[in-house]
Amino acid sequence: MKKGFLSVFVLVFALFVSCSPKKEQKQEEAPITVSNDIERVEPPHWWVGFKNNKLQLLVKNPNIANSTPKISKTGISIKKVTKADSPNYLFIDVEISETAKAGLFNIDFTSEDGATKTKTYELKNRVKKAEDYIGFSSADAVYLITPDRFANADTSNDINSSLLEKNIDRTDDYARHGGDIKGITTHLEYIDSLGFTAIWPSPLLTNNMPKQSYHGYAITDFYGVDPRFGTLDEYKQLAIKSKEKGIKLIMDQVANHCGLEHWWMKDLPFKDWVNYQDKFINNKPVTIANHKRTSNQDIYASKADKKEMTDGWFGNHMPDLNQRNPFLATYIIQNSIWWIETLELGGIRQDTYPYPDKDFMANWAGTIMEEYPNFSIVGEEWSYNPLLIAYWQKNNPNKDGYESNLTSTMDFAMQKNIIDALNEDETWGTGFIKTYEGLANDFAYQSPIDIMAFLDNHDMDRVYTQLNENVENTKMAVAYLAFLPRIPQFYYGTEILMQNTAKPGDHGLIRTDFPGGWDTDTTNAFTGKGLTNNQKEMQRFMSNLLNFRKQSKAIHKGKTIHFAPQNGIYVLFRILNNEIVTIILNKNEDPYQLDLSRFKEVGLDGKKVTNIFTGETLVWDNNITLPKKGCYILTTNKLKK
Amino acid sequence: MKKGFLSVFVLVFALFVSCSPKKEQKQEEAPITVSNDIERVEPPHWWVGFKNNKLQLLVKNPNIANSTPKISKTGISIKKVTKADSPNYLFIDVEISETAKAGLFNIDFTSEDGATKTKTYELKNRVKKAEDYIGFSSADAVYLITPDRFANADTSNDINSSLLEKNIDRTDDYARHGGDIKGITTHLEYIDSLGFTAIWPSPLLTNNMPKQSYHGYAITDFYGVDPRFGTLDEYKQLAIKSKEKGIKLIMDQVANHCGLEHWWMKDLPFKDWVNYQDKFINNKPVTIANHKRTSNQDIYASKADKKEMTDGWFGNHMPDLNQRNPFLATYIIQNSIWWIETLELGGIRQDTYPYPDKDFMANWAGTIMEEYPNFSIVGEEWSYNPLLIAYWQKNNPNKDGYESNLTSTMDFAMQKNIIDALNEDETWGTGFIKTYEGLANDFAYQSPIDIMAFLDNHDMDRVYTQLNENVENTKMAVAYLAFLPRIPQFYYGTEILMQNTAKPGDHGLIRTDFPGGWDTDTTNAFTGKGLTNNQKEMQRFMSNLLNFRKQSKAIHKGKTIHFAPQNGIYVLFRILNNEIVTIILNKNEDPYQLDLSRFKEVGLDGKKVTNIFTGETLVWDNNITLPKKGCYILTTNKLKK
Repeated sequence: MKKGFLSVFVLVFALFVSCSPKKEQKQEEAPITVSNDIERVEPPHWWVGFKNNKLQLLVKNPNIANSTPKISKTGISIKKVTKADSPNYLFIDVEISETAKAGLFNIDFTSEDGATKTKTYELKNRVKKAEDYIGFSSADAVYLITPDRFANADTSNDINSSLLEKNIDRTDDYARHGGDIKGITTHLEYIDSLGFTAIWPSPLLTNNMPKQSYHGYAITDFYGVDPRFGTLDEYKQLAIKSKEKGIKLIMDQVANHCGLEHWWMKDLPFKDWVNYQDKFINNKPVTIANHKRTSNQDIYASKADKKEMTDGWFGNHMPDLNQRNPFLATYIIQNSIWWIETLELGGIRQDTYPYPDKDFMANWAGTIMEEYPNFSIVGEEWSYNPLLIAYWQKNNPNKDGYESNLTSTMDFAMQKNIIDALNEDETWGTGFIKTYEGLANDFAYQSPIDIMAFLDNHDMDRVYTQLNENVENTKMAVAYLAFLPRIPQFYYGTEILMQNTAKPGDHGLIRTDFPGGWDTDTTNAFTGKGLTNNQKEMQRFMSNLLNFRKQSKAIHKGKTIHFAPQNGIYVLFRILNNEIVTIILNKNEDPYQLDLSRFKEVGLDGKKVTNIFTGETLVWDNNITLPKKGCYILTTNKLKK
Repeated sequence: MKKGFLSVFVLVFALFVSCSPKKEQKQEEAPITVSNDIERVEPPHWWVGFKNNKLQLLVKNPNIANSTPKISKTGISIKKVTKADSPNYLFIDVEISETAKAGLFNIDFTSEDGATKTKTYELKNRVKKAEDYIGFSSADAVYLITPDRFANADTSNDINSSLLEKNIDRTDDYARHGGDIKGITTHLEYIDSLGFTAIWPSPLLTNNMPKQSYHGYAITDFYGVDPRFGTLDEYKQLAIKSKEKGIKLIMDQVANHCGLEHWWMKDLPFKDWVNYQDKFINNKPVTIANHKRTSNQDIYASKADKKEMTDGWFGNHMPDLNQRNPFLATYIIQNSIWWIETLELGGIRQDTYPYPDKDFMANWAGTIMEEYPNFSIVGEEWSYNPLLIAYWQKNNPNKDGYESNLTSTMDFAMQKNIIDALNEDETWGTGFIKTYEGLANDFAYQSPIDIMAFLDNHDMDRVYTQLNENVENTKMAVAYLAFLPRIPQFYYGTEILMQNTAKPGDHGLIRTDFPGGWDTDTTNAFTGKGLTNNQKEMQRFMSNLLNFRKQSKAIHKGKTIHFAPQNGIYVLFRILNNEIVTIILNKNEDPYQLDLSRFKEVGLDGKKVTNIFTGETLVWDNNITLPKKGCYILTTNKLKK
């Protein structure tokens, strides 16, 4: 069945090739008889035209170690063949010369007894130039989606009997709910209407785990799309449709660990493919990561703590990959490139950044950025410590010489600052001073504008819950985030005030189903049906805000000026050439007359400004009356419809 | 009277000179008739032999601006004379050639009408080489003293009728209590017995302020010792006696502001000598500093906020000096050098570091460190943000290019971490993890070992109060601080569990009188009379600890290894060559058997270690029983008596 599928694929490919103008190759070399005698060769295909002309194939087949591989194709040469510890693997280092042409070719494996098995492999032409893979930036606004919980556009894929977790149960926060790739693709229009320019779905690759497979972070096949989310083709369709709408697709990748049910866990290639592998094989309790993330930087950390951090398993069901094994390292790097190329990605979000071997991660990011100079990668470290946020971003002058090659880090510190600033009363050391002083830390970041900031994500309470379901405070948080010199990321449902107030900290509940994503839903946030007035207003607010942001070069890359909070009011400006955008965050419930003389240096005096939410205009002169608590955004530019 | 005093001084000097072997100078030049027709020339004297051969004299006398100064001494030449805005000042730039000899010489001021006034000035020989001014380091333990509250050894100076605050009242927390310099000198033996190797008395210079003059930070004469603290000679005696005991004298200096009653406030040399001077002169409310210290680094801070931070007055009674006025700048720098040279200082603590003009501060520190390459300066910034602690220390790779030249900064972050660690229960994110993760931040400091750490100081609640009067926790805090790769600083009275629990935050109470410092005290901590058992035990504990520390090269400069806290136990090691010192901080009330296998990498297995508090020895092998809550310090070295 597998072979049959491939044959169809090759047939289609052959048709495509025959229509293409580049026919020389076919003339040069003998026609290929497509064979698939080998259980697994990964990456499943590759491309010609990379800067790095090396390719390392993982080959898996019973007793393949006894075979000698051979390739007869111009420009493709085997440089090295490495046997693994398991006899069922071979690693083949291939060099692809500059003159190598795309197309199919056979790899023949001849065993000691003279029998030959053949695998037809493909090299493709790249569809666009490396420079044209443009990553996310501060010009973008990112919509984070938990795919199982967003929209179920294809109920036929909800249950897959070949996988371990077979049920679907929307009443269980930790079961699969049926959301899928097509559900995202179907609602790109909605996402676009809100003003988002990038989506980050959490991992869509196969998680063939017996339970809690919905979250996607326990990957069991790094080249497979989880059938319950859809097919590779549907993933590609999502990429294509997103691109058509000007929405970048960010892939959530996991280099640190795999799921316990990963196919290789039953027959590990090397004795050190996975950390604490001997314990696993001998059925002993494996060491769990101590989560002492600071040991990555700590000059005093004990070796024991460092090892437990880097090598410990992320959890009992998430084996820790050993990236110090060079074959695993190459496997992960090639896998990332394979997906960038396959989906024309607009960025990668790398999970649990401080857990894998950090030298490997630097190499991983460096290799990707070398291939795709305008790409973006954001690494997740859950730390409120600006020193660590700074440490992981590229070009940081780390005393230990560490160069991460990472364009972007996650701003957990700012997340906390925003929540505290809005929840706290205004005193000398509480309230807006938290955001004012937090933002002041930007002096220490190599590129603050490339840091990703957010109010919540799939691992923490919904912002509306964190802000005690205060709508005005939630709006201020959203507006401030969108206004910052950052890449703003919002979690799906923020626009309809989704909450998990009933069970703070409950991951399953945080990842609540988006109303309207299921046909049976009585409320539909895509159409507005059944939404409360507060929810509708929030949708309108975010749409106004982010669609304005989309056009505002001052917000994308202008300079920032902020004034120390006074009397419950915090005022910031973003300025680029003639465009000056002002945000006023105001905690006063009663009307407040704000004296503008303090802001003279900004150069707004006498200028007409427009409120982006109401469309009202006024001239910036002596003072301005803030009728009520909330946020005011004023621009010197004309508003676009 | 003043003149008479100087004449006596000159006579003594002449006798000294006549006994000295260097007589050439007297032969070269005409004998000096000592004159003192000028109200004020500052610095009051200077030295030959500095790397920097420039000296700028501030001259104050009625209408001195109409006079022309002249110096006739070999090697001393006037390079420039600058009139100030007030006619009563002249600034004279003098160059002291390499061949200039120490001695007296006259400066003649001839006015437009031909009349001449004369000031006899002195250049002294330096008493030791610049390299021999050794600053405090991690080999030291610093005892911070509030002199008015430590010991009153001379009751005759308690009240000085020529000064504005005339009373003394020990029942009033904010009045003067009578402590003095001699009180410190008298009790150096006690300080030494506790194991301290440096003292930092808060400022001893004249604070002729109508109230709250006791704290010393409102200086009204940068060259005068407050008569209620004693005389310059007594200050010199403190320096000499300290040195004899191997105790370094650290001077607390204030470059940011002066007291409102400073002599120059009645006749300011320049229109910009003090910030917001026009408001002051016109009797308008002056601008108070906004204390937005982050504006020093913040790349987004408004100019308005920066100005209010740097130029605002520290308080209504503390005018903000304008260090951008080059004459004031030179005045402050020369003043610092004058005191280093006069008292053979072992370091400077600079108050309110982020408040003066920061470029000036860099220049100030740079000039001092250029003259005294082995000196130390610690700057105070009250911030819990490691980014700022890092920013101010020399060689930090600041993005804005700022180079502070400052050897040491104050570790407020660690202060808070230690208190939190001990007050909090042990959970995933609370308790010892605070110190473990806080210490991990050292990766970002250019020289953590040169940072000054502390548990409290004169501006914050006593550590015993902060730790809710828990003796064991206070001991652990003290021991941890002494063990860290830092310069530890303790506030006087910590050794007898001084507290301010009745009124948290009350500065006057925090600076409580040290019992025994006054003859009438019924309790005497110097002799032990009337102390509680807890107090005696704490004295003994600190004495053991710091006297051990004094000898421990591993603590002074060894490498540090710490292990993530587990089960309420936090273990650290300091290692230098064969010396391994262990500290175990244990929160378990009941006996706890600690498995030592986790610490294998330290290399202690099979080694004999001694408990520095009990003298007990044991062999480090499988495990160790911790009988009760508290701290255990074990060393591989033999204990010295």
